[in-house]
Amino acid sequence: MTMKPGIVVTGASGRMGQMLIRTVAASDKAHLVGAVERSGHSWIGRDVGEAMGGAPLGVTVTDQPLEAFARAQAVIDFTAPEATLEFAALAAQARAVHVIGTTGMTDAQIAKLEPAARHAVIIRAGNMSLGVNLLVQLTKRVAAALDEDFDIEVIEAHHRNKVDAPSGTALMLGEAAAEGRGVKLADVADRGRDGITGARERGHIGFSAIRGGDIVGEHDVLFAADGERIILRHVATDRAIFARGALKAALWGQDQAPGEYDMVDVLGL
Amino acid sequence: MTMKPGIVVTGASGRMGQMLIRTVAASDKAHLVGAVERSGHSWIGRDVGEAMGGAPLGVTVTDQPLEAFARAQAVIDFTAPEATLEFAALAAQARAVHVIGTTGMTDAQIAKLEPAARHAVIIRAGNMSLGVNLLVQLTKRVAAALDEDFDIEVIEAHHRNKVDAPSGTALMLGEAAAEGRGVKLADVADRGRDGITGARERGHIGFSAIRGGDIVGEHDVLFAADGERIILRHVATDRAIFARGALKAALWGQDQAPGEYDMVDVLGL
Amino acid sequence: MTMKPGIVVTGASGRMGQMLIRTVAASDKAHLVGAVERSGHSWIGRDVGEAMGGAPLGVTVTDQPLEAFARAQAVIDFTAPEATLEFAALAAQARAVHVIGTTGMTDAQIAKLEPAARHAVIIRAGNMSLGVNLLVQLTKRVAAALDEDFDIEVIEAHHRNKVDAPSGTALMLGEAAAEGRGVKLADVADRGRDGITGARERGHIGFSAIRGGDIVGEHDVLFAADGERIILRHVATDRAIFARGALKAALWGQDQAPGEYDMVDVLGL
Amino acid sequence: MTMKPGIVVTGASGRMGQMLIRTVAASDKAHLVGAVERSGHSWIGRDVGEAMGGAPLGVTVTDQPLEAFARAQAVIDFTAPEATLEFAALAAQARAVHVIGTTGMTDAQIAKLEPAARHAVIIRAGNMSLGVNLLVQLTKRVAAALDEDFDIEVIEAHHRNKVDAPSGTALMLGEAAAEGRGVKLADVADRGRDGITGARERGHIGFSAIRGGDIVGEHDVLFAADGERIILRHVATDRAIFARGALKAALWGQDQAPGEYDMVDVLGL
Repeated sequence: MTMKPGIVVTGASGRMGQMLIRTVAASDKAHLVGAVERSGHSWIGRDVGEAMGGAPLGVTVTDQPLEAFARAQAVIDFTAPEATLEFAALAAQARAVHVIGTTGMTDAQIAKLEPAARHAVIIRAGNMSLGVNLLVQLTKRVAAALDEDFDIEVIEAHHRNKVDAPSGTALMLGEAAAEGRGVKLADVADRGRDGITGARERGHIGFSAIRGGDIVGEHDVLFAADGERIILRHVATDRAIFARGALKAALWGQDQAPGEYDMVDVLGL
Repeated sequence: MTMKPGIVVTGASGRMGQMLIRTVAASDKAHLVGAVERSGHSWIGRDVGEAMGGAPLGVTVTDQPLEAFARAQAVIDFTAPEATLEFAALAAQARAVHVIGTTGMTDAQIAKLEPAARHAVIIRAGNMSLGVNLLVQLTKRVAAALDEDFDIEVIEAHHRNKVDAPSGTALMLGEAAAEGRGVKLADVADRGRDGITGARERGHIGFSAIRGGDIVGEHDVLFAADGERIILRHVATDRAIFARGALKAALWGQDQAPGEYDMVDVLGL
Repeated sequence: MTMKPGIVVTGASGRMGQMLIRTVAASDKAHLVGAVERSGHSWIGRDVGEAMGGAPLGVTVTDQPLEAFARAQAVIDFTAPEATLEFAALAAQARAVHVIGTTGMTDAQIAKLEPAARHAVIIRAGNMSLGVNLLVQLTKRVAAALDEDFDIEVIEAHHRNKVDAPSGTALMLGEAAAEGRGVKLADVADRGRDGITGARERGHIGFSAIRGGDIVGEHDVLFAADGERIILRHVATDRAIFARGALKAALWGQDQAPGEYDMVDVLGL
Repeated sequence: MTMKPGIVVTGASGRMGQMLIRTVAASDKAHLVGAVERSGHSWIGRDVGEAMGGAPLGVTVTDQPLEAFARAQAVIDFTAPEATLEFAALAAQARAVHVIGTTGMTDAQIAKLEPAARHAVIIRAGNMSLGVNLLVQLTKRVAAALDEDFDIEVIEAHHRNKVDAPSGTALMLGEAAAEGRGVKLADVADRGRDGITGARERGHIGFSAIRGGDIVGEHDVLFAADGERIILRHVATDRAIFARGALKAALWGQDQAPGEYDMVDVLGL
């Protein structure tokens, strides 16, 4: 009998789904017990390893999530808001930890997770990487420790195909800085600086967005005063870190009471 | 008898004027022979070193530029366009090298330097630092060597009091990149990236402007492709480099035939 | 009657002494009431502002420290260990806050500060800059939060005249990282990496020292794992930050009970 | 009939061999026509795509290089010195372009390539990436343009498993800098700086080696003077760039006369 938790991955055929499957399959702390896709998907009924173009993994892709969840201790889910709400109910029914990396959920959708969180562990985060979550915490603390003699700027770089600027993570860092200072980001954000801008306003938080190549994601939070600067920097070079963060959350969640958690809880910051 | 060229500094009381006076006075390759201010300025008739709040330098501030230029081998001039045009005529009359760091000259004003340049050496540059001028040359060459698989971004950082974005030097770097690629910067510049921008367009050149603290000036030219990046970076930490560049130009100009030159000529790139 | 504390600077003629005098004289939160040099120094009896080559400041350089301290609320002291021990006794006698930036004190010398600290406030730090002290705190926390999957490297850059490597501040950062991990730095430090080193050992902390130009001081603490990195970075561009940190300490010390403090206390981290 | 050159990859089962196979198979400018391994290897006789754990590629792994080369227009070879010498003779016999990324060849071994280069195109480079080769060129030029007021430092970062320091590419950059200055690297290299080093010597070239995580390879060449710095930086984030550089060389070689070439020729710098 193994004590390693069994994991189901939803959205198995997507880029992130495949990354999750490879990460779980390669781990010696968990094992892959299920792979879910929507009904009608061409992968249904196939071995998920073979469907991904590799060696077989002994797990058949299914469109029956509840059946899969019932065999598992955790579900890792980077899909879409509506699907995630359904999976939350089913995971709660199966008493499986539900790790949610799905982005773009509205406040109303997030509120709908509450009933599930009464029966099972839900861990949800906009960015599952250990480093970014740590950076958010540090940013809040440093912003609180330093006064407005330190100008704050958030600079991020991403690949050429990213369609929005600044990145969601950059905004999350800006929110953390604003929170540390006790102000609202919307009141102090300088975005898209261009032309005759006038001198920088004291207390503002600036954003810059660099785009090029296949940069996975880099974020700098700059605190610049006269004569000195502090920079808190995160560099992601492999999307696998998001999968590893999700797996870490799934393992951590095994020992928790039902409720909603985020990566800050997982990391114990 | 000294062979070290004598230098006059115009606009002696300004921030850049004072920097130039200190730089020339401290040099063992030149000596300070004059300091010019406009008629009526409170420094006229005083020792320029004392007027700056330091030890005397043995040079009295004057409002008679021609008299001062006649004793000099070079004039260093970071003033304003109209004053610079007058100084150009007088320097030519005195056969002194005229080093011009004045910014904001229109094309029409620049054309008016031509008569003076028939009789004397004029060296003019928007940025007198050795490093920035070298960076401009490198940017053009690298942009010409690489194809559009490499996305080009220019990122600059300056102090909180800078009123325009991107910096003139950043635009100069962008022009160099565009020239290297045989395109017009105006057709491909991405400035003030913010919001739903869509994917980056191939061949475009992006700009980002960071503002904070007392940063003297930092410029990165990023060439980002899939799997690799080249960055050409210049960091200025002391405005004295602009004064040293001007002095270097004044010395170099001693051996040149009359005509108009820029820092690329001085550097022999 | 002014409520602004009066400050005495010791070692007035040194590079750091002059920086301190300029900083205190320019502050609107304190005023300069004394400047101390050793007996026989050529500045004794002169106005300290004039001795520095500038305008008079109304303070005469003295070799009688106790007399000067008796008129002051704080003494700022970046001198040498033996002198600092004497000043500590005199400052305690005068009930003045003693801010010590002197480096190179042995443990035995530090122990000798204890009697003085029973009667007066002593604030001592190897690096008085706000940013570096914050970085030390962050380094300890991040090292404690991350496991050994994150390799730690400390990289520093200083001017070409620095004679030791790595810098004292780099070692202080390394100590903080080791403390965060619960190990001894001496057991895990990788210094001067060169040649056939073999693979990096898990849990080690590496150091690199870059030397060039007039770099004031830059420190990076890198935490590098597979697929992601966190970098905590401090850049000093002006030695005035050390003077400002000392002044901040002197002001903070006005409201404290007698005892020994460091910059972490001053910053309230 | 296709005009796309057919490519054979040697050392097919190695990490770099597999990367080359994937790169050639994915290219629309070339096609994979052979995969070579040594006699007795378990992959002999299998489809190379399947052997790599993926979909079949229609190419059977063989231990008969000459037979494979005879069907090809180019051979890409990242193996070992002795094997490469054999492949060079066979590629020349087959009149196929031989792209050599093999490292660690002695001068004597390199000399043995000469006969082959009389009959066929050989392209050999220690680092096949476009960016690094460009950086080497830039470094030489900048070192030649700047005098010794600019201190040169080469800083590199690599993954934790790298066993030598500084990297071969860092030394190549140091050689380029020394060549630009007209000095010998061995006379001026500062390696493994640690302890009481004394002030930096004018004209020296320093090296620093950072190790951590899975960093693919980053190289900075720093030119630091008083008040300004230039940094030439290359960041590799994906080993595929070395495979793409090799493929680019194979394509470029199709139009060349027999002889020995390097990546500088391929890039037309």
